[in-house]
Amino acid sequence: MLSGLSKKEEEMEMATPPPQGSFNDSHISHKNNQNGIVQSLLTDLYQVTMAYAYWKSEKRHEIAVFDLFFRKNPFKGEFTLFAGLEECLKYLQNFRFSESDINYLRTILPPSVEEEFYDYLGSLDASEVSLYAVPEGTVVFPRVPLITVEGPLPVVQLMETTLLNLINYASLVATNAARFRMAAGNKQLLEFGLRRAQGPDGALSASRYCYIGGFDGTSNVLAGKMFDIPVRGTHAHAFVTSYVGLQDLKNRLLTPLDGDSPTDFVSACLELREEVCKTLDVLHEETKESELTAFIAYATAFPKGFLALVDTYDVLRSGVPNFCTVALALHRLGYRAIGIRLDSGDLAYLSKAVRQHFRKIADRFEVPSMANFTIVASNDINEDTLHSLNQQGHEIDSFGIGTHLVTCQRQPALGCVFKDSESPTLYWVFQLVEVNKQARIKLSQDMDKVTLPGKKNIYRLYSHEGHALIDLMQRPHEQPPDNERRVLCRHPFEESKRAYVSPGTVQLLQKLYWTKGEIQEYLPSLKEIRERAIQSLATLREDHKRALNPTPYKVAVSADLYQFLHDMWLDNAPIGELS
Amino acid sequence: MLSGLSKKEEEMEMATPPPQGSFNDSHISHKNNQNGIVQSLLTDLYQVTMAYAYWKSEKRHEIAVFDLFFRKNPFKGEFTLFAGLEECLKYLQNFRFSESDINYLRTILPPSVEEEFYDYLGSLDASEVSLYAVPEGTVVFPRVPLITVEGPLPVVQLMETTLLNLINYASLVATNAARFRMAAGNKQLLEFGLRRAQGPDGALSASRYCYIGGFDGTSNVLAGKMFDIPVRGTHAHAFVTSYVGLQDLKNRLLTPLDGDSPTDFVSACLELREEVCKTLDVLHEETKESELTAFIAYATAFPKGFLALVDTYDVLRSGVPNFCTVALALHRLGYRAIGIRLDSGDLAYLSKAVRQHFRKIADRFEVPSMANFTIVASNDINEDTLHSLNQQGHEIDSFGIGTHLVTCQRQPALGCVFKDSESPTLYWVFQLVEVNKQARIKLSQDMDKVTLPGKKNIYRLYSHEGHALIDLMQRPHEQPPDNERRVLCRHPFEESKRAYVSPGTVQLLQKLYWTKGEIQEYLPSLKEIRERAIQSLATLREDHKRALNPTPYKVAVSADLYQFLHDMWLDNAPIGELS
Repeated sequence: MLSGLSKKEEEMEMATPPPQGSFNDSHISHKNNQNGIVQSLLTDLYQVTMAYAYWKSEKRHEIAVFDLFFRKNPFKGEFTLFAGLEECLKYLQNFRFSESDINYLRTILPPSVEEEFYDYLGSLDASEVSLYAVPEGTVVFPRVPLITVEGPLPVVQLMETTLLNLINYASLVATNAARFRMAAGNKQLLEFGLRRAQGPDGALSASRYCYIGGFDGTSNVLAGKMFDIPVRGTHAHAFVTSYVGLQDLKNRLLTPLDGDSPTDFVSACLELREEVCKTLDVLHEETKESELTAFIAYATAFPKGFLALVDTYDVLRSGVPNFCTVALALHRLGYRAIGIRLDSGDLAYLSKAVRQHFRKIADRFEVPSMANFTIVASNDINEDTLHSLNQQGHEIDSFGIGTHLVTCQRQPALGCVFKDSESPTLYWVFQLVEVNKQARIKLSQDMDKVTLPGKKNIYRLYSHEGHALIDLMQRPHEQPPDNERRVLCRHPFEESKRAYVSPGTVQLLQKLYWTKGEIQEYLPSLKEIRERAIQSLATLREDHKRALNPTPYKVAVSADLYQFLHDMWLDNAPIGELS
Repeated sequence: MLSGLSKKEEEMEMATPPPQGSFNDSHISHKNNQNGIVQSLLTDLYQVTMAYAYWKSEKRHEIAVFDLFFRKNPFKGEFTLFAGLEECLKYLQNFRFSESDINYLRTILPPSVEEEFYDYLGSLDASEVSLYAVPEGTVVFPRVPLITVEGPLPVVQLMETTLLNLINYASLVATNAARFRMAAGNKQLLEFGLRRAQGPDGALSASRYCYIGGFDGTSNVLAGKMFDIPVRGTHAHAFVTSYVGLQDLKNRLLTPLDGDSPTDFVSACLELREEVCKTLDVLHEETKESELTAFIAYATAFPKGFLALVDTYDVLRSGVPNFCTVALALHRLGYRAIGIRLDSGDLAYLSKAVRQHFRKIADRFEVPSMANFTIVASNDINEDTLHSLNQQGHEIDSFGIGTHLVTCQRQPALGCVFKDSESPTLYWVFQLVEVNKQARIKLSQDMDKVTLPGKKNIYRLYSHEGHALIDLMQRPHEQPPDNERRVLCRHPFEESKRAYVSPGTVQLLQKLYWTKGEIQEYLPSLKEIRERAIQSLATLREDHKRALNPTPYKVAVSADLYQFLHDMWLDNAPIGELS
């Protein structure tokens, strides 16, 4: 536990089980009021102009099916965590154009647009739409439809951009967080990204989806309040520089943990300082008194939660001696200090040197637990820093991670070229695959961009040991795979890539989440989604998850879907003519 | 003008002048209701714990001064556009912890926190705070305080994270947009980033601040409604694939522009197709009828705004012939088509080839204006793509830009290493520079991170030709620079770097925007801020703005501030001892 500021988490663990979600539960609309901007007008104008063209050519009752998927895993990895689904369902619940929206559209669309179209827009809601999805927190792969939306063509078209917006960053940052989690092993991970995110809402999304991806807490207080995430934090450099010297301390008293009468805490610290400095081989004149003052002020305010930022002046010659002085004085009053935070410098070296200092203090003052003070590091850490620290060895217990986590940049190794797969976005698409039960295909010169036509059932096939083996897409009429027989899995585009798979278990990946204007599934709490993410990642073999050259996970189509896809491709592709 | 969907813009240009902002005007709270989440609890927990420690050590009435600035320009550039100020003022207007906020804080802070502190928090607002700032839309440079906040230490401390959050992405994306604007010359620039931004609010910020940076419009309808930005868009690939063939067209009629009786528009198109294909040296069988169907449907809905996405099948052998067919049919009815959009492929080659096709059609059918159809490109364009297109030559009139704009990634040239300056964030800091009129300094082994202590007046010195020469910071008691005498400008850290400057004009950069609980300055409309950005960038010499190896702009301190800074540095830095 990082600091004493964790009452909330303790309470949560001791308390009754998390509140049960219900099919149309109130915590959704509560959050919506706070986030408040997933409005139906948050869409690209071309969705509206297309809706009008559909309406004009009397396609408003055609039933379309769109698949939402991505083409490539981010961060040079071979997996993605799916997140953002609850936000999509919330958006469907509230899908409606207000009178004010329609009046605005009137001002930007040409005057030739017929008045009946505005009446039509005003009448729309999501009651004729069905949404199927993979559960939030599932580990997922390219080309697999994660959301499938079925409904009147113009209505589903109007939803495209918003759904992409809600899924994109959520999944990206959850995946990034999961990668940091794997790199950090069992160390504590805290999200400190508020000041670097894309505005207030970007920051709230970062806190929420990093928690899903395996972070332990956030510094963002509002995110803690809204999403029930543990919140952490102590003090900044400004706190240290705001004190000049001991004369700043108007309040010198501190009451012992089990005592009654307050003692002079400042004098207690000063008495210890000389011996601490001697133990650490530092001249007492080298330690900054203004820093000691700030630490005493902080410890007086949070005697059970004393964690000091020690790099304002000099970590080893001022910050750590001052921390140890105050920690020992607290100890004599019955309190246990928490530890220190490093926000600059060579973290591997410094954390080991600080640990040595702590051991010397523990020995000299015979307080063995002081060897184990928490060391928090928060200096511009990215995934590669974590891997590098693991290789070098370090003594850090907890990482506070900001910029690289929320901006989702992955800094490539020295000399490497920045590629798409390191880009701070995920290339999601929302593809039309069926209209009025007729399959549609989108062709492309780039084979990878050809889409899989028609509605599909998606299965994940697991080995007898419980490892995910392959994701298989079938046409709806096909018999589902089961553990009684082997099933032929084909690469969707490469003819010769085929395999028979005999699964131990089979899981239907998509569930019906929304139909007839109602949410159809229990919506798990954030903690439950986080748990699902951990379990889902655990089914993935290590070689798919490793940081360096991970093995791609296989995504396949059935023999039937392969044939259907390729027949349709040939029917639609133009035949060239050489002359 | 990209499409017929521009009534709004025309209206805006014809209408009365933009609504006047007032000192506490209503459009601010209106927007706040829509964005709605700049809550006072949107802060790091350590700001709250520090506030408690300040309160405990009776520092609550100390008057602190914090400077907000950044250390390095983004995108390997030498300038930054300052944006986000209005959001900061809105935040100050609403700064207050609700009862619900305080009840939540009670659950996460230790039980030892005194009840009076919560009363104190509940009593806080921004009425004792003053905020000085550079006007929004000004071109700015590293180390210059863009916002200076003065007020009770705990109150200003509580504002740090939120101010950083509101300024960071706003300035970053405005700067990115300004760079795209310079690379694009006088071509139209449209922001298409909604689906790739960090959630709904990230997208709204992107639209808003890209407009400030020089973009001409956005696809984001809600941003158009909220911020009065021109909105643009036509149709997507899904629109094309949703049509199978001409039998889909329930409505074959279109009324001529100045006529009364509708004519059979489908037949008109089919009559023209053969001759168009012949002119473009394409077999009519090569053109996709489903695509022609979609174009006819779109043109029927928007006869004055027909702009077709032509790369669903084959740009030159299907998309462009189909577009020209429909455009000619429209022409015969008195309508002028707008043009085409390319969303894939080699944009330099394709745009030139398409322009050739247009010229052939213009000649053959004797409609000279058809040679000038608009060509829009929207295929994953970044700043370097624009520079490369300029070198190769192209025929593109308008760019739709998404991912690279809103994620603010700059893809370095092949073989280059990804550096901090290309990172999708700006390293803003909020630094304590004074407490109770005593200057404070933050030292660092890294000279660049040493802060400039105390309150400062900041001047921009211009040449007689109106070019910005240097930004100069002075101590408050110094005589302002003027055009009567030369002034010594010193590099803040490098002793030998000095210059005498004889300015033509001098501008005081910061204004008092907030004091005594009120906004003190007229708040310009978005359009006015955009205009200021254009003017401010125009004062900057070309060599500071160029994409490759730009010259750094000089930021200096007065001789007096230099001396003060270095005296304070020596007073505070530890003296080592060799033995």
